[in-house]
Amino acid sequence: MRAEKALVEGEVWHGGDLATAKALFPEAPEPWIDLSTGINPIPYPVPALPLSLWQRLPGKAEEAALLEAARKAYRVAAGAGLVAAPGTQILIEALPRIAGEGPVAVLGPTYAEHALSWRKAGASVREIATPDDAGDAPVVVLVNPNNPDGRVIGREALASLARRLAERGGLLIIDEAFVDFTPRDSLIPELPPSTLVLRSFGKTYGLAGLRLGFAVAEPRLTDALRTALGPWSVAGPALHVGALALADRAWLDAAARARAADAIRLDTLLAPHGRIVGGTALYRLLATPDASALFAHLGRNGIYARRFQNDASWLRFGLPGDEPAWVRLGEALASFVPARHGAA
Amino acid sequence: MRAEKALVEGEVWHGGDLATAKALFPEAPEPWIDLSTGINPIPYPVPALPLSLWQRLPGKAEEAALLEAARKAYRVAAGAGLVAAPGTQILIEALPRIAGEGPVAVLGPTYAEHALSWRKAGASVREIATPDDAGDAPVVVLVNPNNPDGRVIGREALASLARRLAERGGLLIIDEAFVDFTPRDSLIPELPPSTLVLRSFGKTYGLAGLRLGFAVAEPRLTDALRTALGPWSVAGPALHVGALALADRAWLDAAARARAADAIRLDTLLAPHGRIVGGTALYRLLATPDASALFAHLGRNGIYARRFQNDASWLRFGLPGDEPAWVRLGEALASFVPARHGAA
Repeated sequence: MRAEKALVEGEVWHGGDLATAKALFPEAPEPWIDLSTGINPIPYPVPALPLSLWQRLPGKAEEAALLEAARKAYRVAAGAGLVAAPGTQILIEALPRIAGEGPVAVLGPTYAEHALSWRKAGASVREIATPDDAGDAPVVVLVNPNNPDGRVIGREALASLARRLAERGGLLIIDEAFVDFTPRDSLIPELPPSTLVLRSFGKTYGLAGLRLGFAVAEPRLTDALRTALGPWSVAGPALHVGALALADRAWLDAAARARAADAIRLDTLLAPHGRIVGGTALYRLLATPDASALFAHLGRNGIYARRFQNDASWLRFGLPGDEPAWVRLGEALASFVPARHGAA
Repeated sequence: MRAEKALVEGEVWHGGDLATAKALFPEAPEPWIDLSTGINPIPYPVPALPLSLWQRLPGKAEEAALLEAARKAYRVAAGAGLVAAPGTQILIEALPRIAGEGPVAVLGPTYAEHALSWRKAGASVREIATPDDAGDAPVVVLVNPNNPDGRVIGREALASLARRLAERGGLLIIDEAFVDFTPRDSLIPELPPSTLVLRSFGKTYGLAGLRLGFAVAEPRLTDALRTALGPWSVAGPALHVGALALADRAWLDAAARARAADAIRLDTLLAPHGRIVGGTALYRLLATPDASALFAHLGRNGIYARRFQNDASWLRFGLPGDEPAWVRLGEALASFVPARHGAA
C-alpha cells in the first residue's frame, strides 16, 4: 500500500505537511482537506500589517505590548516570568539546556517532540502512564489537555506533583498548547513552584505559520530562555498580530463556542467507525482496528487524517473548515467499507 | 545630558529600537528618521500573502523552495550544508553549542552579539585586531565586510586562516551579513574546510522584521544547527517572501547600484564633520571627537544615529529612505556647531 511508504523508522510523524499527503495519494481529488493537525481552521483575522512591521527589527515596545496582552490573556501572576518565542517548538528545544540533565519522565503517549528534544540533549527519557509513576525523576513533562487523547490532569493533582518536584529541586513542565478554550484547566494563574508552562498561539488562533509561543515560570527560568533565544527572536508581524488577538476576548469566546459545536458534529460523523477516545475542541481521536484502511480510504478521497507511530489503531481528526469540507468528510466516511468485513 | 541615560553598564547597544531614541529625545520632531541600523530603507516589495502562509505550519515544500533559492543566490556548492533560521541572531546563539568550548578569538571591534553569545555559553573570548593574532584559538569569528567599519578580509587570507584552523580541528565563523551587494567577497562558493558562513536576509532586503537568516557549512554542522532549532522554526511568510526575493537577481542588482549611490551621497554630507572610517553601501562610519554632541544634536532633530560603547568617537549612519529624510539630515548636519569651538 502506498500509504506505507511514509513509515520510515526513526522519523517523527507530524500532521500539517500536505506535501506528504499528496505524495502518498497522488491521484486524490483536489483541494485536499487537511485534518491532520489540531489547528483551528477558522483563523483570527489577520489585519492589514503596516510595512514597518516587516522592515524594522522587532522593537522593545512591540514586544512589551505582546507580553502585556499575554499576561492578561493567560492570567500570569505579577511575580511570574513570561517569555515569547517564535513558536513553542523552539522553547521545547531549549528546555533541556536550562532545566538540567534529567532523567525525564514524560506522561504519554503524547506529542513526540518533548521526549525527542530531551533525548537529543542526551537525557534519559521514560514514558509514564500516570503522574504517580514519575518516581524520583527530577523533570516531569506532560501535555494538558493531552494531545492526542484530550486527557486532562486536574489542577490539584498537578500542584501536588509540582510540590513533590520542588522538594527535590526538580521541574514540572506542562505544555498547555490546547488549553485556550478551557482556561479553567490552566495552571498558570496559580503557578506552583518549580513549574514551567508552555502556551501556543498558532493552534487556537489558527495562525500556525506565524510562529509564536510562550513560557511562564519563575523569572530565573524565563530569563534563561530569553537569553538562549537572544534578541529579536519573534518577528514583527507576530508581535503585532499576537498582541491584537490575545487582547480580543470576544473572538476567543465565540471561537470556543463554535469549535465545541464543530467537535460534537465531528464526533457524530466518527462514532459509527470506532471508539472516540477523546480530544479537545480542535481535534478528536478515533480508535479502530480499521485505522490503516480508513486512513488510506480518506487519503484517496483527498482527506488527510493523522496516524500515529505508537498506536496503529489511532486516527486523529482536526475540524473541517467549511461546509464543503464537512460534506466531503461525511461522504467519505459513509462510503468506507472495512476490508475485513468484505465488500458490500 | 539626556542622551547619557542610555549608558547602562553591561547592556549591549543596538540600533533599530526607535522607542529608545524617543525616550532620549522626547521633544524631537516627528517622524523620526532612524539611521541607527544598516537595514536597507527601500525594502523588497512584500507581495500579497496567501492566508495559508499564516494558517498552516510551515511546510517541507516551502522550506525546500527557500533553501533552493538561497543555494542559487549564495552560490552554495552541491556538497555544502545550508540551514535556514528565524534570523541570523538565533544561529549566533546556537553556535557555541555546536562548535565546541572555545577559547574564541573575535576579530574586532565588531557586532557585539558574537562575543556575547560565546561568553554566555561560558567560553573565553579574546578580541583580536588581525587574523594573524588568532594564535591557537580553536574558534575564530569575524564579520566580513565588518560592521561597523566595513573592513574586508580578502578571500585568500580567509582561506589560509581556515586551513590553519582545520589543521587543529577548529572552526572559522564568518558573518557575511553585509556581503550581498559585493558577492565577490563571499567565501561561500569556494567554502574552505572548517568554515561556517552566516548570511542575513533582512538587512539587504530591508525586511528585518521578517526574521530570516542562514548558515552554510559542512553538513555535519548545518545538521546540528537544524536539530537545535527543531522543526518549523522559520515562519510561513518568511519562507515565501525569502524564496521570492532571493530568486530576484534584477532587484538585487538594482538595489546594489542605488544604495551605492546613496552611500556616496551620505559620505558627502558626513565628510565635513569628521573622518569617514569606512562602511558598506548600507551604512557609513564617522569618527569625530564631537560624536557625542553630534549624536545629541541629531537626536534633538529627530534623527537617530548609532553610537558605540567601545569607541565614543564613532557614529554610524544608515541610509535615509526618501528625499525628505535626506533633506532633514542635510539640514541637521549643516546646523551642527561643535561646542568646543564655541557658538558662531
